[in-house]
Amino acid sequence: MQQQRVRVGVYGASGYAGQDAVEILSQHPCVDLVFATSGTYAGDAVPFTNVRYIKPDDAPLESVDAVFLALPHGVSAQTAKKAEAHGVRVIDLSADLRLDTPELYQKWYNHPHPHPELLPTPYGLPELNRDALRGVERIAAPGCYPTTTLLGIYPLLRENWLVNDRPIIVDAKSGVSGAGREPKPNTHFVEVYGNFSPYGVGRAHRHVGEIEQEMQKINPNAGLLIFTPHLLPVDRGLMASIYVELAPGHTSAEVQALYEQTYANEPLVNVLPKGQLATLKHVVKTNKAAISITPNTDRYVHITSVTDNLRKGAAGQAVQCFNLMYGYDETTALL
Amino acid sequence: MQQQRVRVGVYGASGYAGQDAVEILSQHPCVDLVFATSGTYAGDAVPFTNVRYIKPDDAPLESVDAVFLALPHGVSAQTAKKAEAHGVRVIDLSADLRLDTPELYQKWYNHPHPHPELLPTPYGLPELNRDALRGVERIAAPGCYPTTTLLGIYPLLRENWLVNDRPIIVDAKSGVSGAGREPKPNTHFVEVYGNFSPYGVGRAHRHVGEIEQEMQKINPNAGLLIFTPHLLPVDRGLMASIYVELAPGHTSAEVQALYEQTYANEPLVNVLPKGQLATLKHVVKTNKAAISITPNTDRYVHITSVTDNLRKGAAGQAVQCFNLMYGYDETTALL
Amino acid sequence: MQQQRVRVGVYGASGYAGQDAVEILSQHPCVDLVFATSGTYAGDAVPFTNVRYIKPDDAPLESVDAVFLALPHGVSAQTAKKAEAHGVRVIDLSADLRLDTPELYQKWYNHPHPHPELLPTPYGLPELNRDALRGVERIAAPGCYPTTTLLGIYPLLRENWLVNDRPIIVDAKSGVSGAGREPKPNTHFVEVYGNFSPYGVGRAHRHVGEIEQEMQKINPNAGLLIFTPHLLPVDRGLMASIYVELAPGHTSAEVQALYEQTYANEPLVNVLPKGQLATLKHVVKTNKAAISITPNTDRYVHITSVTDNLRKGAAGQAVQCFNLMYGYDETTALL
Amino acid sequence: MQQQRVRVGVYGASGYAGQDAVEILSQHPCVDLVFATSGTYAGDAVPFTNVRYIKPDDAPLESVDAVFLALPHGVSAQTAKKAEAHGVRVIDLSADLRLDTPELYQKWYNHPHPHPELLPTPYGLPELNRDALRGVERIAAPGCYPTTTLLGIYPLLRENWLVNDRPIIVDAKSGVSGAGREPKPNTHFVEVYGNFSPYGVGRAHRHVGEIEQEMQKINPNAGLLIFTPHLLPVDRGLMASIYVELAPGHTSAEVQALYEQTYANEPLVNVLPKGQLATLKHVVKTNKAAISITPNTDRYVHITSVTDNLRKGAAGQAVQCFNLMYGYDETTALL
Repeated sequence: MQQQRVRVGVYGASGYAGQDAVEILSQHPCVDLVFATSGTYAGDAVPFTNVRYIKPDDAPLESVDAVFLALPHGVSAQTAKKAEAHGVRVIDLSADLRLDTPELYQKWYNHPHPHPELLPTPYGLPELNRDALRGVERIAAPGCYPTTTLLGIYPLLRENWLVNDRPIIVDAKSGVSGAGREPKPNTHFVEVYGNFSPYGVGRAHRHVGEIEQEMQKINPNAGLLIFTPHLLPVDRGLMASIYVELAPGHTSAEVQALYEQTYANEPLVNVLPKGQLATLKHVVKTNKAAISITPNTDRYVHITSVTDNLRKGAAGQAVQCFNLMYGYDETTALL
Repeated sequence: MQQQRVRVGVYGASGYAGQDAVEILSQHPCVDLVFATSGTYAGDAVPFTNVRYIKPDDAPLESVDAVFLALPHGVSAQTAKKAEAHGVRVIDLSADLRLDTPELYQKWYNHPHPHPELLPTPYGLPELNRDALRGVERIAAPGCYPTTTLLGIYPLLRENWLVNDRPIIVDAKSGVSGAGREPKPNTHFVEVYGNFSPYGVGRAHRHVGEIEQEMQKINPNAGLLIFTPHLLPVDRGLMASIYVELAPGHTSAEVQALYEQTYANEPLVNVLPKGQLATLKHVVKTNKAAISITPNTDRYVHITSVTDNLRKGAAGQAVQCFNLMYGYDETTALL
Repeated sequence: MQQQRVRVGVYGASGYAGQDAVEILSQHPCVDLVFATSGTYAGDAVPFTNVRYIKPDDAPLESVDAVFLALPHGVSAQTAKKAEAHGVRVIDLSADLRLDTPELYQKWYNHPHPHPELLPTPYGLPELNRDALRGVERIAAPGCYPTTTLLGIYPLLRENWLVNDRPIIVDAKSGVSGAGREPKPNTHFVEVYGNFSPYGVGRAHRHVGEIEQEMQKINPNAGLLIFTPHLLPVDRGLMASIYVELAPGHTSAEVQALYEQTYANEPLVNVLPKGQLATLKHVVKTNKAAISITPNTDRYVHITSVTDNLRKGAAGQAVQCFNLMYGYDETTALL
Repeated sequence: MQQQRVRVGVYGASGYAGQDAVEILSQHPCVDLVFATSGTYAGDAVPFTNVRYIKPDDAPLESVDAVFLALPHGVSAQTAKKAEAHGVRVIDLSADLRLDTPELYQKWYNHPHPHPELLPTPYGLPELNRDALRGVERIAAPGCYPTTTLLGIYPLLRENWLVNDRPIIVDAKSGVSGAGREPKPNTHFVEVYGNFSPYGVGRAHRHVGEIEQEMQKINPNAGLLIFTPHLLPVDRGLMASIYVELAPGHTSAEVQALYEQTYANEPLVNVLPKGQLATLKHVVKTNKAAISITPNTDRYVHITSVTDNLRKGAAGQAVQCFNLMYGYDETTALL
């Protein structure tokens, strides 16, 4: 089974996450890219391939085994449903399948879930729940902020080292590609250049729901999330700066070892040696996360977690999930 | 007359050139800003003022003496016409009044001129034709590429130092604000960041018509213009890199002195001393042009001319024209 | 006394803070700039003036009334001492006079204070201690991180609204000019471009000592400072992102009004209306701070405080102090 | 012979070109990287490898078959000589072996050539002289400006389509990594950010000598080179904007086909289809050049040629030469 070939389609392939998905898949030894859709660029050549973009409605679902959905939320669930009807497996990069219940979806996205029967779908963060992803038919690949935040906080939550009633503070910064390819006032070069700005503050960003849901699964005592995203004047890269308080019985000097042990066998998570600090350059254009640990006092620890928002924060992770789904080596096409 | 107060309106005041016009006018001691229009931001506060944007149709033309038009071409001529009907003077920053005949306008803008009776309008490049601007009712302020190019080539053309049948080569580079504030694919941060790209090549850019028209006025023997604009990954600033061949009887070593003499009394044109090279930092956020001269051989000279595309290349120059129109000191609010 | 003229010298005038000091002073109606020193650029013209840089040892202290010191720490105290011997007033932009005791200086700068007799010097943050600055002979102008952080936390500390034993978390981001003009590996364009990186983490940055000293003066119960600075790929601008917990009896919804009241009469601090978020563009190239307030829960508040690190974070504030020192209107040359 | 393994050392491996050389070689299936030298970073881990930087004097020349020299000029020739004494083959990325005579070297580098007996060395631009590179012991890999310029002008020169006595005008723009990794005032982030600046103008840049030498070899009637390099505020990428005049008998409409034919079988040169324009994004982080052709009039043609200055302009091309030297497929590790 290891070396079976898989016929793949990519929806939303001209968006930033879709482009990276196609680029990565073009290097996957067992993938045949059958189609790539784009509402805007249909007819144009798809970089890294010998196909051309087609309209989503023209996509031949009967000719593929699996699809990647790099689509807007709402649209994505509908396409997932259609794919399922054709017996096609789905890796969804949108938010549509990430929340476990229609109620949560309604709360964070302000409209009813288009296909509640698709929920819950396995959440595709392999370092946290790899076993739930092997061989499945459908995976919800997490967003860039959740991936980077959850990897940064996971060891402490899992081992229950944090004070229960304290919020987890995450000051996050994302490159502009995270805002998508459609031109908008806030992604105009002149507006972003030389600027740095918060947005979606006050627990209003939709990723808060997704992150808290997953934190609760790791540890039901997890504190509230205080989350402040910012727009960084770079094209790629995301940093989650995490501030937490340790429960009595643990000291910040022990955290480095805990992280090193937790991620010792993870090929796509790099815990930096003590004294080194994670920066965007550690991860941009790679499929890895990098994490550094800084004790501030005995009880207060600061964690810096970084990813390329389009790679480990989107397309790279989606391919990692795909590899688990089909039983390939998990890092195929990713290292 | 020198110190009369003038009531002013700015159309298109939320665009990049319009914003700079408002900022400069807010420091003008004789100007009362009465209104500022914006189709998109009506109701919002106008920076540097105590007024709010209004819709263009709500602009009280009866309450102003003069208007600045920072509008798209086509729309601008119509507003100029309306202003004229109210006896309001016009400084037009669009292309609508820059070409001298409806035929040229049709050729470069591919539609009939909305109000051919407005042509010709005095061309507002004070260093070339200051006397034609004093006290007039209507001025066409030149574009950023024409301003920077014409200032860079003017002394050689006027003195007839160039070989007649040789083209004038201009390799030009503009910051992104030159493309306007409306979000478009080519001004998306991610597309521009880390990139540098030509556009409007092959004598296709509309400014070619305007530049050649003005070059012909300076010297009917002026060569053809070979003009290649590029998009530069900065917010502001424009460079015209000019390559020309001198006619026999002149050598490149004499060009420095020619430029220094020509612009000796120009407060807004800075000819750099021999050996210094003009860069964007010389002019960004100022209302000046800077020019440097480089002999390559006896006959071949290279000139670097720079402006802030929103200042001397647009709003600053428009205010300079306004000052001439009303008899104020030409540099009022500009130094 | 109000309109007396003051003869001024600027040491370290070719560094970034020094350049901005000269630029601001060139617009000050009561200042005569007598000299500007530069070890590296002696002989070159000083922008915005008609003088040339001179070597620091050549500076005619006998010809000035006051000096601004934009010098490295260590050197600055020695120059301050020399100036004092000439009866010249001092506004020091370095760290040398900011800490109140030689012991604290030794702790944070790892060498003995060169002139402990100069300590304590009044700390030049006018919004906190304006009265201590009027008419004095010597002022220690605060650093960029302390200014931005202290303005952002001051109302809550002064009113004692915070839980006493909780740390104050500050995730800070600074433009590259904060690292000085001397070329170093970490300020090389290629290293910074496309990157974002923490540094001086773990309460190791020298500004921690300065900030905690001043927080203690505002409120002796102030919590520990957890401070993480980052290098932002822009030239100017600084953001302090502050996370605090309110004491029982206060709710986050009340904080907006508290800040508006506290800074109601401050011309150089702009508390943004509820719902607006402070960004670098609010302050770059201005002498103001801007602050926005975000409630996260009833008890947890997030404050975003921004300045131009070279203006309100350095040279602008130094001139504000100078104005108080000499009894000019506090905002002269700053608005 | 095709699959023999080669033991390789890289000198100057911590500079920007050296880093890219190591990265590319780490993916070469037949290369064993034995050592990488760095005067500054000796002891640090070398990215993409499992070795550490060593001092150049500690490099075990007896343990390698070939060395890449990414060293400053002057030093490089001495290291080449030493390598030769050990029977080690040399790919030199410096300027030391590019000029064919000691006289030319003296003229452009202002000091005698350290080892004139090494001249001439085959010039490593495979698309122009592939046959001269197969199996040789020593190759001088061209600089970034010469590579990009020569590829852009080669077809016209070789076919003798240009007017003989007209200069070839090249307005060139390079990303900052071209200036090297050593911190200098002109590569400080704050100096470059938001700026664009010419340098080395007036036929003074050292690459003029190298480009003219090679143009003469292609066509002894080649015109003079007028060359103006500029510093572009990006990390990587180089554009040569070339302006030429065709001789009678040829028209600009024919140039597209000439280039397509000339480079039809070149895997690392991409002639863009008519109407597309070459930009930095076509080539950054690839080992290819891209070229676009724009007719301006019948006689005047504009060519845009782009490379990644560290790849096809340095390290990528060096590996391409290495592949020819050892008989590997020319694009091994490069596509």
